[in-house]
Amino acid sequence: MEDKIKLLETFENQYPDRDYNIIHTAPEFTSLCPKTGQPDFAVITIEYVPDKLCIELKSLKLYLNAYRNDGIFYESVTNKILDDLVTVCKPRYMMITAEFNVRGGISSIIEAEYENPEFFGRENFN
Amino acid sequence: MEDKIKLLETFENQYPDRDYNIIHTAPEFTSLCPKTGQPDFAVITIEYVPDKLCIELKSLKLYLNAYRNDGIFYESVTNKILDDLVTVCKPRYMMITAEFNVRGGISSIIEAEYENPEFFGRENFN
Amino acid sequence: MEDKIKLLETFENQYPDRDYNIIHTAPEFTSLCPKTGQPDFAVITIEYVPDKLCIELKSLKLYLNAYRNDGIFYESVTNKILDDLVTVCKPRYMMITAEFNVRGGISSIIEAEYENPEFFGRENFN
Amino acid sequence: MEDKIKLLETFENQYPDRDYNIIHTAPEFTSLCPKTGQPDFAVITIEYVPDKLCIELKSLKLYLNAYRNDGIFYESVTNKILDDLVTVCKPRYMMITAEFNVRGGISSIIEAEYENPEFFGRENFN
Amino acid sequence: MEDKIKLLETFENQYPDRDYNIIHTAPEFTSLCPKTGQPDFAVITIEYVPDKLCIELKSLKLYLNAYRNDGIFYESVTNKILDDLVTVCKPRYMMITAEFNVRGGISSIIEAEYENPEFFGRENFN
Amino acid sequence: MEDKIKLLETFENQYPDRDYNIIHTAPEFTSLCPKTGQPDFAVITIEYVPDKLCIELKSLKLYLNAYRNDGIFYESVTNKILDDLVTVCKPRYMMITAEFNVRGGISSIIEAEYENPEFFGRENFN
Amino acid sequence: MEDKIKLLETFENQYPDRDYNIIHTAPEFTSLCPKTGQPDFAVITIEYVPDKLCIELKSLKLYLNAYRNDGIFYESVTNKILDDLVTVCKPRYMMITAEFNVRGGISSIIEAEYENPEFFGRENFN
Amino acid sequence: MEDKIKLLETFENQYPDRDYNIIHTAPEFTSLCPKTGQPDFAVITIEYVPDKLCIELKSLKLYLNAYRNDGIFYESVTNKILDDLVTVCKPRYMMITAEFNVRGGISSIIEAEYENPEFFGRENFN
Amino acid sequence: MEDKIKLLETFENQYPDRDYNIIHTAPEFTSLCPKTGQPDFAVITIEYVPDKLCIELKSLKLYLNAYRNDGIFYESVTNKILDDLVTVCKPRYMMITAEFNVRGGISSIIEAEYENPEFFGRENFN
Amino acid sequence: MEDKIKLLETFENQYPDRDYNIIHTAPEFTSLCPKTGQPDFAVITIEYVPDKLCIELKSLKLYLNAYRNDGIFYESVTNKILDDLVTVCKPRYMMITAEFNVRGGISSIIEAEYENPEFFGRENFN
Repeated sequence: MEDKIKLLETFENQYPDRDYNIIHTAPEFTSLCPKTGQPDFAVITIEYVPDKLCIELKSLKLYLNAYRNDGIFYESVTNKILDDLVTVCKPRYMMITAEFNVRGGISSIIEAEYENPEFFGRENFN
Repeated sequence: MEDKIKLLETFENQYPDRDYNIIHTAPEFTSLCPKTGQPDFAVITIEYVPDKLCIELKSLKLYLNAYRNDGIFYESVTNKILDDLVTVCKPRYMMITAEFNVRGGISSIIEAEYENPEFFGRENFN
Repeated sequence: MEDKIKLLETFENQYPDRDYNIIHTAPEFTSLCPKTGQPDFAVITIEYVPDKLCIELKSLKLYLNAYRNDGIFYESVTNKILDDLVTVCKPRYMMITAEFNVRGGISSIIEAEYENPEFFGRENFN
Repeated sequence: MEDKIKLLETFENQYPDRDYNIIHTAPEFTSLCPKTGQPDFAVITIEYVPDKLCIELKSLKLYLNAYRNDGIFYESVTNKILDDLVTVCKPRYMMITAEFNVRGGISSIIEAEYENPEFFGRENFN
Repeated sequence: MEDKIKLLETFENQYPDRDYNIIHTAPEFTSLCPKTGQPDFAVITIEYVPDKLCIELKSLKLYLNAYRNDGIFYESVTNKILDDLVTVCKPRYMMITAEFNVRGGISSIIEAEYENPEFFGRENFN
Repeated sequence: MEDKIKLLETFENQYPDRDYNIIHTAPEFTSLCPKTGQPDFAVITIEYVPDKLCIELKSLKLYLNAYRNDGIFYESVTNKILDDLVTVCKPRYMMITAEFNVRGGISSIIEAEYENPEFFGRENFN
Repeated sequence: MEDKIKLLETFENQYPDRDYNIIHTAPEFTSLCPKTGQPDFAVITIEYVPDKLCIELKSLKLYLNAYRNDGIFYESVTNKILDDLVTVCKPRYMMITAEFNVRGGISSIIEAEYENPEFFGRENFN
Repeated sequence: MEDKIKLLETFENQYPDRDYNIIHTAPEFTSLCPKTGQPDFAVITIEYVPDKLCIELKSLKLYLNAYRNDGIFYESVTNKILDDLVTVCKPRYMMITAEFNVRGGISSIIEAEYENPEFFGRENFN
Repeated sequence: MEDKIKLLETFENQYPDRDYNIIHTAPEFTSLCPKTGQPDFAVITIEYVPDKLCIELKSLKLYLNAYRNDGIFYESVTNKILDDLVTVCKPRYMMITAEFNVRGGISSIIEAEYENPEFFGRENFN
Repeated sequence: MEDKIKLLETFENQYPDRDYNIIHTAPEFTSLCPKTGQPDFAVITIEYVPDKLCIELKSLKLYLNAYRNDGIFYESVTNKILDDLVTVCKPRYMMITAEFNVRGGISSIIEAEYENPEFFGRENFN
């Protein structure tokens, strides 16, 4: 499970002088519940302001697909995706939203964000 | 009715260094009207920023189900759920929203929030 | 559990010379799973063509509420509601639709209908 | 309450050689519950195939408004509107649908139709 | 008002051996109320099975626009559009649906259809 | 018309130490146009932060129903409901939104709010 | 085209001591394209905080209808409606939103607002 | 892949004297593309009229989950699910609908049905 | 333009003994208007009952993409897609629906279907 | 590809004394993927506050259509449209939003904005 960060690829941001938003929505995320082994399903949204690097879209798909047979908790997978993407593309800002399907009559959303300290204090984008 | 807080369980937050949001939506809440004994129905939404503890999801389901045959007012049940969950998981922030079905042609929403004084002044999450 | 049919009341149909449709939708039905004891939730729709008697609406509410703490399977509750209502109001036609919430990632609908043999062959209403 | 049929006016159908549909939807119908005196609300839909006469729209509005302070049951008001409109405009076909708001957690629809025996057997319009 | 049929143009149907449906939806129809002079608004839908001729789309737009300052009743405009289009393109089948905006709290739909007697008895298209 | 404030009842707020929101939505409000006598329809939303008193829900229903046969302008009824409710329950904050149905092709919304000067400067709730 | 401001009428604001919002939505606006003469269609929304005067609703309808056969650009009509309404009712604040239908595959929205300098600095309403 | 039919369990139909519909909707189906190995996602709907046996819901979930790491074509998986379920519960009628997510800009639905020859000629249920 | 049928590929139907439906929806179809050269956009839906052959999905995408720079009328492209697909996969039944975006304020739908004479008289699938 | 900025035309802003918003939404944008040559599709939204010049709508359509057969990445096309439009009309503020259709199960949005330094510090418009 530790190696899937290697699947992520980046390309050079052609517009580094401008703060701009990139939002990818992946409605087909699935992993396993670490307690029961039953599948979990989520919509993963990745919103970020790139600095020098952008995330390559096909590698992002393969990275997310690689969780398919991992047992992992909601809170952990959301924070780990954030950590992995921040490590790889070093953005100015990033937010991960994971909206999980109903289990036991309850649906859950986990939201985690990262602010690059170098850009701390920049005007909020939205 | 006083004992149902004992149903709630927690687990350790693996990412305590990061402020992040957890949102659980439970559309199957039902209790009884204390005046008429007739059933009430609500969607309960729990949004919080965990500190050291997260709420265990299955125990949350059992806790909410335990109101099924209690007679309790809209305002009381919303504030009591907030108090119980704050007591158990000591979050940095928590908000409870209870959206009750139409009664007498009027639908009602109760919203109550808690801010942990230790984290007072932190940047607002949304 | 056998006695709840006694809660149902009827009133005389004032327009027996005309075949017409009455449709009641009750989105707040809840009972218990007979295996796990956990609550089930459904939208119950009752569509019928009255003959001499109509179902009194408040008694219908009390009848449906009476399943609140009964353990009963999806298929059984749908067919039992149909049998009870047919017994009480002897309609020309009746259809019960029960749409149950997601359990284990799967939602379920049960549909059962009754045609009064005396009126068999009447032109279909819809 | 008996006299409100006098409010209805008609005008001559300019295309009597053609069977065609006229559908009026009135979402602002309100009357009173004959038991409790509390207001009821419904969307009334009138669909008909005119013969020699069409219903004048402004008079229809005044006719429906005239139920505002009448106590009348769901089934009765639907059938009475059908009877009154058939009496006044003698259509080839007419259907009244009355969709009542939630009361006691249950919403209700009443549907009643009329087929003019002279045109019985004509090809169904929809 | 009589001359606007001259605005309609047709082109030859390239697939006359096949019964097929053409549906045009024009949500920007407006005319005037003949009583009050106030504007009426409707969505006009034209569904037809062409025989030897199809309606040219730009000429249809100009034809419908030509009603802009005419005072005309709902029922009349619907039947007249049907008559004009049938005259010009002689279809195997045509249906006009005119959905008028709310006036006096009531919205209205007029539906009129034409079946070419030469093709009478053909299998219904939908 | 002046006496209907007497219909409103209150009960003691059990959680006065906490600022929390109560939102009631009443989609069945109807009054009369003071010029034409024709009925008006609105959805009334009442959002408030209680201080010592909460509005009793059934009395609120009866209070709103009491406008049924009053002739009153949009702007007046919205401001009057705000004044009456503030007088009766003395909230920390209250906002009334009245969304009126289409008249003459135009729909209207009136929004009016009250801030209790004693609580002026409190942190905004939303 | 210059004279249509005379169609607008006002009435006295009965609640001048309170800042409150009035929002009128007129989905039936139509004018002509000044280049092609073809009709344009828009939803016009007028949101304002009245000072001493309110806009009379029927006169607003007649004022908006008066653009029916004028050739005028999107940007011009939006700003002109704002100027005319500000001239007539001298509000504390006003915003006009004009949402035009698709032309050439592109839909357009124009938003223009006015702030009365006398009330400059007042707390924002929304 | 051949053995997953063994996961399916049934229980006795308590109402075999009545033709009634059971509809299960499973929006979390996922398998693999046999060409690319990439995941496919579908909503599977199972509609059937039981004869002597009903499908047990938890076993159905486990059966559908068992396709998670199988490479199988859209058409094959739909027909195979139909064959397996018919083999196990021998229904009077069954229909499988599989709605697959967009691939290459195109979404796909496969629908397959089974009619038990013993019950051939029964009146259609819908 | 004549050669694009060569892009279509098929594969063997594994379930030829069963009549079943395959529905592909392609919302990204674009071609050019033969008069103005401006782009047209449509959602193409292909519904068919396969006989011995199914349409390979990737080849279908390439076939539809090949219209990108062709000038072709709505009616022609719909009928031509039907002819090409029937030629290539010889289905038992096929229906093409092409829903074109608004042009000149009017949207258009073309529907054309094919019934294989060998299977004429088979029970209708829907 | 470099020359398409020449397609853009402007006209003089008639209301330069007022900051106001112009929003154009173009749901029919299509270009090619520079890697695969396959078509991409997006909804492009252009929101700006004009200074001395407005963008002419027909020239905008032709400018956007000119990308039809260009291979260009999501991030590049969004930033280039922003650069070209800023160069041509020198607005006070502009924001481009490009919402791309699903590719590989993931949809993407790119948002880029420009603030004219001369107007820096102006009050935010929304």
